[in-house]
Amino acid sequence: METVKSIDRLRELIKEKKAQNPNLTVGFVPTMGFLHRGHASLLEAARRECDLVVLSIFVNPLQFGPNEDFERYPRDEERDLNISEEAGADLVFFPQVEEMYPSPTKTIVSVSGVSEGLCGASRPGHFDGVSTVVTKLFHIVQPDRAYFGLKDAQQVAVIEQMVKDLNMPVTIVPCPIVREADGLALSSRNVYLSEEERSQALVLSAALNAAERLTEERGSGFTAAELTALIRREIGRSPLADIDYAEVLKYPTLEPFTAPEAGQRIIVALAVRFGRTRLIDNRILNIR
Amino acid sequence: METVKSIDRLRELIKEKKAQNPNLTVGFVPTMGFLHRGHASLLEAARRECDLVVLSIFVNPLQFGPNEDFERYPRDEERDLNISEEAGADLVFFPQVEEMYPSPTKTIVSVSGVSEGLCGASRPGHFDGVSTVVTKLFHIVQPDRAYFGLKDAQQVAVIEQMVKDLNMPVTIVPCPIVREADGLALSSRNVYLSEEERSQALVLSAALNAAERLTEERGSGFTAAELTALIRREIGRSPLADIDYAEVLKYPTLEPFTAPEAGQRIIVALAVRFGRTRLIDNRILNIR
Repeated sequence: METVKSIDRLRELIKEKKAQNPNLTVGFVPTMGFLHRGHASLLEAARRECDLVVLSIFVNPLQFGPNEDFERYPRDEERDLNISEEAGADLVFFPQVEEMYPSPTKTIVSVSGVSEGLCGASRPGHFDGVSTVVTKLFHIVQPDRAYFGLKDAQQVAVIEQMVKDLNMPVTIVPCPIVREADGLALSSRNVYLSEEERSQALVLSAALNAAERLTEERGSGFTAAELTALIRREIGRSPLADIDYAEVLKYPTLEPFTAPEAGQRIIVALAVRFGRTRLIDNRILNIR
Repeated sequence: METVKSIDRLRELIKEKKAQNPNLTVGFVPTMGFLHRGHASLLEAARRECDLVVLSIFVNPLQFGPNEDFERYPRDEERDLNISEEAGADLVFFPQVEEMYPSPTKTIVSVSGVSEGLCGASRPGHFDGVSTVVTKLFHIVQPDRAYFGLKDAQQVAVIEQMVKDLNMPVTIVPCPIVREADGLALSSRNVYLSEEERSQALVLSAALNAAERLTEERGSGFTAAELTALIRREIGRSPLADIDYAEVLKYPTLEPFTAPEAGQRIIVALAVRFGRTRLIDNRILNIR
């Protein structure tokens, strides 16, 4: 495994590999580092499906709001490199902010529609930052396949829309959420949680489980309002939980619905604060 | 020369050529068709510098405002194909609107700064349409080099900014303006002009010539206000000319200046209406 900090050097290395094998397929896993088993599962999927696996680790300032956690976002280069190597990465791209933004970008890639609700409403400018940096990274790495975790389901929807609209020559591979044994979705931000917050944060997966049970029991015989009330009630069991959003929407369009139809897919999407820490989680459900 | 209407087929053909020659360089000339010698000069430059020359002909609705000339923009497929072949194109990509926009795009690539004055001010949304379609075309063709005429100097500045900001793996090659013997810059829109308008449209190149003479005589000894007054006076010689803008700016930043500095580059940029026809022209001048 090789670690690269410069865009030019990364391009050079990938070019060399392609010269050796013109049919080389490149799998790409863009991350913000502080890797966990969720990221490792993306790398493992890329390893299975591609010849060359490229990981990027870049905490992208453009996708953080002025009052968000850019500065304190957890970073651990050594640990990240160990996890990357073990999960099968070939190249790790680890640029400084100045390498990615030598001057403030004047160009923004902006996706309307799917980006506007949920995290897009809570975090203005967030998805413009995501789609812009992902575009930059795609242009640098030029992958055949790019792997994204479904914990950020809205991010996946935004990127899939962008790839389709801009004819980007890459296949997006959404990968399942990875959870702790007790149900908490893995997140680099879990490290922020106090012991008590960590324990109460289980209401997120509990709410999703309750939602899944309801749809299994009732098929399409429920309303969005009922399901929303159920998940809010479940989250309300934690005195520390402060709901940012708790919504049920059509998937992947992220449009609201009143009552589901059989055969439809819906998403239950949650963002909940515990102290200063904002956690997200979701489940995509097939309505019978 | 081969003509292709489908994105998939174009990608397939380019892939085949690359399989035959892994070091193949692709030169790309994006146009809106109704080709003239200006476009031919771009193709000829691409022919000299690249192995495979791809031309696209697409009148992009996204870069036209609601009251602009999208519908009446001149089109002549047969003539275009003759000119392309003669100028050395290998592949002509000729998509329908539905091929490029199977559904309305939700993704926009937007460049701030350089896009905001001149044509950006007169034609709101125009450069978002340009940068978005050029991004799409770059993703479809994946060229090594892309050729643009300097008659649209602001367009070149916008695209260069976009390529830099988004790390697009392509070299932009700006090419000189091509003119009729009497000085009129070639434009697909010249066909709109009546005989009288055509004759009076010479005030554009005359104004640019006058500006060039002034900078040659005076070096940096003039003000932007003086130069602007001069070009407006020259254009004013035509009773039919209706000035949209006539500006002198720093180049390539397109920022205003009061007095130039020796060694600086400036642009004299004009947009003038003759009846329903809006013509643009410009000259980039090196200040001694």
